[in-house]
Amino acid sequence: MEKVAVLGAGSWGTALAMVLADNGHEVRLWSHRQEHADEINATHKNEKYLKGVQIPESIHASNDLSSVVKGVKHIVLVVPTKAMREVCKDLVNVMDQEVILTHASKGIEPETYKRVSEVIKEEIPDKFYEDVVVLSGPSHAEEVSLRQPTTVTVSAADIKVAEKVQDLFINRNFRVYTSPDLTGVELGGALKNIIALGAGISDGLGYGDNAKAALITRGLAEIARLGTAMGANPLTFSGLTGIGDLIVTCTSSHSRNWRAGNKLGQGNDLEEVLEQMGMVVEGVRTTKAAYQLSKNQNVEMPITSGIYQILFEGADPRDVVDQLMTRIRRHEMEDLTNILDEQMND
Amino acid sequence: MEKVAVLGAGSWGTALAMVLADNGHEVRLWSHRQEHADEINATHKNEKYLKGVQIPESIHASNDLSSVVKGVKHIVLVVPTKAMREVCKDLVNVMDQEVILTHASKGIEPETYKRVSEVIKEEIPDKFYEDVVVLSGPSHAEEVSLRQPTTVTVSAADIKVAEKVQDLFINRNFRVYTSPDLTGVELGGALKNIIALGAGISDGLGYGDNAKAALITRGLAEIARLGTAMGANPLTFSGLTGIGDLIVTCTSSHSRNWRAGNKLGQGNDLEEVLEQMGMVVEGVRTTKAAYQLSKNQNVEMPITSGIYQILFEGADPRDVVDQLMTRIRRHEMEDLTNILDEQMND
Repeated sequence: MEKVAVLGAGSWGTALAMVLADNGHEVRLWSHRQEHADEINATHKNEKYLKGVQIPESIHASNDLSSVVKGVKHIVLVVPTKAMREVCKDLVNVMDQEVILTHASKGIEPETYKRVSEVIKEEIPDKFYEDVVVLSGPSHAEEVSLRQPTTVTVSAADIKVAEKVQDLFINRNFRVYTSPDLTGVELGGALKNIIALGAGISDGLGYGDNAKAALITRGLAEIARLGTAMGANPLTFSGLTGIGDLIVTCTSSHSRNWRAGNKLGQGNDLEEVLEQMGMVVEGVRTTKAAYQLSKNQNVEMPITSGIYQILFEGADPRDVVDQLMTRIRRHEMEDLTNILDEQMND
Repeated sequence: MEKVAVLGAGSWGTALAMVLADNGHEVRLWSHRQEHADEINATHKNEKYLKGVQIPESIHASNDLSSVVKGVKHIVLVVPTKAMREVCKDLVNVMDQEVILTHASKGIEPETYKRVSEVIKEEIPDKFYEDVVVLSGPSHAEEVSLRQPTTVTVSAADIKVAEKVQDLFINRNFRVYTSPDLTGVELGGALKNIIALGAGISDGLGYGDNAKAALITRGLAEIARLGTAMGANPLTFSGLTGIGDLIVTCTSSHSRNWRAGNKLGQGNDLEEVLEQMGMVVEGVRTTKAAYQLSKNQNVEMPITSGIYQILFEGADPRDVVDQLMTRIRRHEMEDLTNILDEQMND
């Protein structure tokens, strides 16, 4: 059994801490707010993020980063992408041992357009970690906290380190696979949130399952296109962290990205929506990053561009979705073939 | 404007007839039951299959195959796969012109394991058709009949003929793409019904979106594996007729395959379920066919095998799904890589 620090006590951090506690590990859960940590310790609940769920008493919450990471073998980072760099800077000040760093955050850093593992590696000297691992996949936190069957993938530059994280988390309900494609796993998790916004917008406009399925399918193609240009294996986007996560995020009202899109489709503007949500909506910032990346990489991303126009340029959702549905492209395979061509020419 | 015969007045045949009528074509709709045709002509409704939907008065229904196909340029076959061969035999007796034959049936013929276009080509001499075209994609008939945005793909050995069918059907709400991969388009539409049964079973057992997304993702991989072995382009399974149709079928209670699976997951046996449904459930027969095909082709299809065991060997759904979720396979990419390897070695 290991000592593990989970940093971030939102719904996903708490659910992952519960998986680790179920496996018998000693789990310390860090929250950036003292009163939140106190509430978890007093009630063994996290009502704002996981309503009605009983948290194992063995999980100890704290706001003191230094005591949380003291002597642990594993640190699991589950903070919003925007806060990742700051938390890493704070971590460096309190670490004195080598650990395995795992993150489970799905985003791209605003401004720098870096993947989360890149941010971590920039901020934390490599003497402090064996490797940086990503954990991603189709996994609503609510269902994981209820111990419903779930599959995720872990990936790292050093697959042996990823396998240690696999062993740490795996149990009967929580199945963990490994993948050698760190870039693809991180990008799939981040970029799918853009398409989830789009799926929500389509639903919010009152369109049906046919339109949404088309949007998801075309969305997957453009995610894979950008990901491949950025060095990912295109096949990763056909796996759990690609299409799997995309499906779960686009077809469930659990997803806050879908919910935000849904409100946009109903005619609310971005500011109103973010205020109503009261939680981080990663897809909004990811759309901005991916829009810029697609320009830098010279990759065509019509759905991302359309959502960018809705979010940041006041475009009418109905016009954008109608335009996406009626784009002239006689042969469906054109895009898909391009992806394979790129890969085969590698 | 063309004269078009649509054979089959179920929900999908009727919805496609409506698209054609919206485009100004002269549409004749054949039903195998006289009283059904009479009801459509009298009420301009098809209450059993498209509840509450108003059918354009320009669509004329009939039970007389000879008069329906007389002088038409296009015949659209939308009958259950099981009935396809018989209907083709009847067609030969009443045709005296060359037409374009399009089918929109998603299945594999029981016993022979043939694709629908193969059955049609066996039964109808080629002097009677320019080519045989398949129309497939993520398209609930109900939504098409309500003119909600929908995308589909048409494919044929001769892409020029597919483009004629594209022109016939395309309109603002009903977007039609072409694909050169007839085999892949037909197999995607047929095989996804197996996974839809599985998704329904998972939901019926009370499992959540995480489990279902895993099942769909792994299901897509095994469909693509069988399809590739049978000559399809694996990329087709990443498109509208593959993952697109799979998503729409697995995540919506419109789908009768999902509904049948849902009842199975709740503990009903196959006979009870089919009796309750009162409509054709293509996925049941397709599971049997794909199970045999996977043995013949020596392709591993664990989800299809599991569903076969539930349907035909009395296996307990919970045992099967639990077993599928806990299969030992550390590296997710193993399967996916195999698919690409096969293709690259072509």
